[in-house]
Amino acid sequence: MVVKSQIKFIKSLQQKKYRILNGMFVVEGVKMVNELLQTTLKLQSLYTTTPELLPSKGFDYQIISEKELQKISSLKSPNKTLAIFHIPDPVPLNFTDWILVLDGVKDPGNLGTIIRLCDWFGIKHLACSTDTVDCFNPKVLQATMGSIARVNTVYTDLEVLIEKLDVPVIGAFMEGESVYKLNWPSRGMLILGNEAHGISKKLELMLHKKVSIPQYGKASAESLNVATATAILLNELRRN
Amino acid sequence: MVVKSQIKFIKSLQQKKYRILNGMFVVEGVKMVNELLQTTLKLQSLYTTTPELLPSKGFDYQIISEKELQKISSLKSPNKTLAIFHIPDPVPLNFTDWILVLDGVKDPGNLGTIIRLCDWFGIKHLACSTDTVDCFNPKVLQATMGSIARVNTVYTDLEVLIEKLDVPVIGAFMEGESVYKLNWPSRGMLILGNEAHGISKKLELMLHKKVSIPQYGKASAESLNVATATAILLNELRRN
Repeated sequence: MVVKSQIKFIKSLQQKKYRILNGMFVVEGVKMVNELLQTTLKLQSLYTTTPELLPSKGFDYQIISEKELQKISSLKSPNKTLAIFHIPDPVPLNFTDWILVLDGVKDPGNLGTIIRLCDWFGIKHLACSTDTVDCFNPKVLQATMGSIARVNTVYTDLEVLIEKLDVPVIGAFMEGESVYKLNWPSRGMLILGNEAHGISKKLELMLHKKVSIPQYGKASAESLNVATATAILLNELRRN
Repeated sequence: MVVKSQIKFIKSLQQKKYRILNGMFVVEGVKMVNELLQTTLKLQSLYTTTPELLPSKGFDYQIISEKELQKISSLKSPNKTLAIFHIPDPVPLNFTDWILVLDGVKDPGNLGTIIRLCDWFGIKHLACSTDTVDCFNPKVLQATMGSIARVNTVYTDLEVLIEKLDVPVIGAFMEGESVYKLNWPSRGMLILGNEAHGISKKLELMLHKKVSIPQYGKASAESLNVATATAILLNELRRN
């Protein structure tokens, strides 16, 4: 049975402040929960209507009814399983390789896609400005597909971060040097900015180089979506 | 004043069958409407609460109240303007350059992003299987950002299309030749498949080559999202 206080607690984790306060986040759906159960993330509680769908390894779980699931879920159509995990302790950023940096990315789908891209391209550390959307937001988690457990995502003051470090800092702009001509150093920071406003003025002044993805021919698209621009730039970084 | 029959008609265009029946689609929001007003798309009707936000060029419009806008809009928070455009006549596919082909892409955001990518990379023709999401779906339009007017999007039987044409056909797979090693011919078809199931078996048998985007290092991401994979492949196609 799911008691009232549990419902209240689980629902509260839909909000960032309670996630931070409790150091926990909620994940829903068989596929996503099963994927995260097989990572290093620490499980707090696991609720399911259909335990036979859990991975075989012995996890403690509580069997609940569809009706109870409805009560703790934030989805219109809950999908059999809901889990609470501990937010992992932040790991210090490691600058022996490239670090991806996001300055004010607001769309949960974009951040989720970008975390998944980091995982694909072996980028282990992601530094986000404090006004970037929270990576444990349910919509972000839905788009990461489990990569959240493998990419160390840190929220920090980006000016301070850039100032204290002596690595190349490259920013993505509409008008910059063609990324095709760039000789990527062996390490550094690659920065992408907000969906509407790009990289903030203060950070722009701290960049060592601006790069852009060339439009082809007389194309007239206004800009690329930040997640697709990240895809192209990380591919360019790794293809050599 | 917006009369009942208008409300009913505009609302009906939220559904694909009525869009096809009437050959029209709805666009909402100042930015998107203004962008489409400056393309070759033919305007049917234009409703606005704030005519001073329209582009200066003389368009016929009807001033309506916030309340009336609420009635014809499909959004929770309507944004000042709503327009109805005619669906453009399909243009025959032109095979002198590359054509992007989508086999069963279901997510509106993905299709919208892909149309925007085609525009960026100068891909003028997009061929979609008949079970791909409709490109005049409001959520697709929101993600295309006006590129919809510049990319000829055609729904067709892909098997018939491939069979009747003598151009190289390349499909994106998890396991294929590295795209970094590919020598792109000067024209052809590049196919991407459904979000969950990839390219259908029947089409797979008709491919001349399978390509994939290499994962970096010991990365363990399950797959790339179809829109980000498209971004990387179109960039690879155009970068030479």
